[in-house]
Amino acid sequence: MPKLIDHDERRQQLAEAAWRVIVRDGVSGASVRTVAAEAGRSAGSLRHVFSSQSELLVFALELVIERATERIAALPTRATAVETVEAVAAQLLPLDVERRAEMEVYLALFTAANSHAELRGTRDEAHRTVREACRWMVGRLGEAGELAPGADHALEALRLHALLDGLAAHLLYEPREADTGWARRVLSLHVRALG
Amino acid sequence: MPKLIDHDERRQQLAEAAWRVIVRDGVSGASVRTVAAEAGRSAGSLRHVFSSQSELLVFALELVIERATERIAALPTRATAVETVEAVAAQLLPLDVERRAEMEVYLALFTAANSHAELRGTRDEAHRTVREACRWMVGRLGEAGELAPGADHALEALRLHALLDGLAAHLLYEPREADTGWARRVLSLHVRALG
Repeated sequence: MPKLIDHDERRQQLAEAAWRVIVRDGVSGASVRTVAAEAGRSAGSLRHVFSSQSELLVFALELVIERATERIAALPTRATAVETVEAVAAQLLPLDVERRAEMEVYLALFTAANSHAELRGTRDEAHRTVREACRWMVGRLGEAGELAPGADHALEALRLHALLDGLAAHLLYEPREADTGWARRVLSLHVRALG
Repeated sequence: MPKLIDHDERRQQLAEAAWRVIVRDGVSGASVRTVAAEAGRSAGSLRHVFSSQSELLVFALELVIERATERIAALPTRATAVETVEAVAAQLLPLDVERRAEMEVYLALFTAANSHAELRGTRDEAHRTVREACRWMVGRLGEAGELAPGADHALEALRLHALLDGLAAHLLYEPREADTGWARRVLSLHVRALG
């Protein structure tokens, strides 16, 4: 299906151009025109993928969710539940350049959704997806006997979600070139302390 | 000193007007002109307090830090270190209308500092103040024997800080009228689980 593949590649190229613009100039700098320029294309040729700034932002955020979900699905099997959960959680933190760009887009759009109602559906979907992942991680630890006896699964999922979003914000706050080892150690401490 | 008191009251009124505008219209909507209008004053009469949008934002964020610090200093003595730490941490979460407005200002300015270099000093000071408070809380638990043996104080302070900022973001994400009991329960669980 060469046509479909071309279409997916084009989407991918546009998404990457959109991310570069948002990371560099913020959400307010990302328009159909600036993203087209970044991708070396005409604005008109983008219209079949997105035709307004809102559609562009929804498109970029959906791709962030898609990529994180794909990375998690592709993770190799780990020996223990603790290692599995650490590996999944690490995919939701900006620990490398790619995930940092994703998180910048995610946070920029999260804030933008306050004043752009048309972004809220995708923003809420992203939030729910991470919440679901946290529930899954806590459940996985529970099945493996790696949660303290009598642990409140629902509350632990809320705690893990808050910790991950807080770590993500603090990692973004630090310079791009800063060491991220501290965040991996906090994550590891947290997952192990649940037992 | 009636003159000084007048000046402080005026600052306070202007700060509250600035907060109302930022919470309602975002940082981009807060200008010397709009804040003056909100306070029922002329733009010219504000110039001795702040004369540009950046100075206005720095002023608003400094007041957020000041108010949280004052609330923490005024907390009554608690029977145990765990209760003290829970009470201090709760002052850093948007658990009521006043703290919610403060947190909205804090987060709006946190994001705005990425594109407004003149906000970064105050933003960094706010971040350091909360980090310091987290170190103090972990130290307080340690002195009282309420930390697990061999706990890494520095790492626990980073974990508590990430958890608090994540909880704050999630509380703001929820509607203003939503119940905040879940966040108090997560905080309580966390502080007790450190022991």
